[in-house]
Amino acid sequence: MRFDVLTLFPEIIESYCNVSIMKRAKEGAVFTLNTVNPRDYTEDKHKKVDDTPYGGGAGMVLMPQPYVDAYDSVEKLDKSITVMLSPQGEPLNENLVMKLADYNQIIMLCGHYEGFDERIREIIKPKEISIGDFVLTGGELPALCLIDAVSRKLNGTLGKIESAEDDSFSNGLLEYPHYTKPRDFRGYKVPEVLLNGNHKDINEFRFNQQLERTKLKRPDLYEKFKKEADL
Amino acid sequence: MRFDVLTLFPEIIESYCNVSIMKRAKEGAVFTLNTVNPRDYTEDKHKKVDDTPYGGGAGMVLMPQPYVDAYDSVEKLDKSITVMLSPQGEPLNENLVMKLADYNQIIMLCGHYEGFDERIREIIKPKEISIGDFVLTGGELPALCLIDAVSRKLNGTLGKIESAEDDSFSNGLLEYPHYTKPRDFRGYKVPEVLLNGNHKDINEFRFNQQLERTKLKRPDLYEKFKKEADL
Repeated sequence: MRFDVLTLFPEIIESYCNVSIMKRAKEGAVFTLNTVNPRDYTEDKHKKVDDTPYGGGAGMVLMPQPYVDAYDSVEKLDKSITVMLSPQGEPLNENLVMKLADYNQIIMLCGHYEGFDERIREIIKPKEISIGDFVLTGGELPALCLIDAVSRKLNGTLGKIESAEDDSFSNGLLEYPHYTKPRDFRGYKVPEVLLNGNHKDINEFRFNQQLERTKLKRPDLYEKFKKEADL
Repeated sequence: MRFDVLTLFPEIIESYCNVSIMKRAKEGAVFTLNTVNPRDYTEDKHKKVDDTPYGGGAGMVLMPQPYVDAYDSVEKLDKSITVMLSPQGEPLNENLVMKLADYNQIIMLCGHYEGFDERIREIIKPKEISIGDFVLTGGELPALCLIDAVSRKLNGTLGKIESAEDDSFSNGLLEYPHYTKPRDFRGYKVPEVLLNGNHKDINEFRFNQQLERTKLKRPDLYEKFKKEADL
């Protein structure tokens, strides 16, 4: 997998990918990362990338020329997809993450300030993806969420691949509760069933916990699960 | 506003908050940031913070002792809320962001690896918040989304406060399209209405664009808006 990120703040993207599991994945060649700064493509002598909006209003708008020229400079591989991180996009979820993990290259456009000049959308025609109904100062955090979530699906990122299969949403339900040492912490104890080594009982306990907390915390997911499992 | 972040990777949090608008907000004392590393609170001589799960399974689980002791060490201000970033939480949206911005302190618990020992939840009783139905390697990116989104609501973060009021979701609809220089880029032109200076026409154009793209891209938001506006 190759990630190309167009951003005015490449250091945000690079610093996150140089820590922890992301660093190991990058060093293990699970993915390669390339950042492109539209500021390096501006034709303006002051390296300006934004200007005031036509029609008035507060904030600045990202000019089309630096972004489109920066985009044109990116080598396009076979099976490549271009994504714009934007609150107007399709919500990111595990299904979409799985689909994205099938590509060889994901090119990401990160906005900043007020937003993109609309012609950037018209010319590049990216798939717009949103990480949620909230507004951020830029697309860098959403791009990192996408890189992180997709990387988890690529062989080699996680120490043991099963780890991802236990995660929330992997069977349409929230995760079961986890317990580790000590058995008793400040009087709070690990449930007996997890200590007795009976795998059938453990699996049943965990599945019931998944059902229970999904019903409580995410009734929407619970209803969907019930319908699909025909419970 | 004071943000306290419990994380095994404080450098992720700090480096993001030292760039761009976040940096200006922090330097302008719009918020203060404090990171706490549970690894500094472990009683284990190898500074271990995780261990294998009781009952078996892949991945590692964060032990309760280092997290709970680290949490206890954080000074609690008046009007403080503790948040655990978790896919099991309430989805973050602009409403929730507004509510969070009313606190004086937000303490955030970031997981990593497989997840938290359940007793961390039982003892600290945090409000769980999710940024979406996808799984990440840790809570650091969700914590940064929360910090970024909440900061935007605090006076002084954005150059002009109106900028946030134009954002997506601020009136329940997606943003209208933005245009800046040049008027003609590769044959793609700025709509005439934005150039003629008639504010009534401009407002009408923008509002119609908001309606149209919300209907197209987010029918769920459109239906909600229609109902509330009694259209």
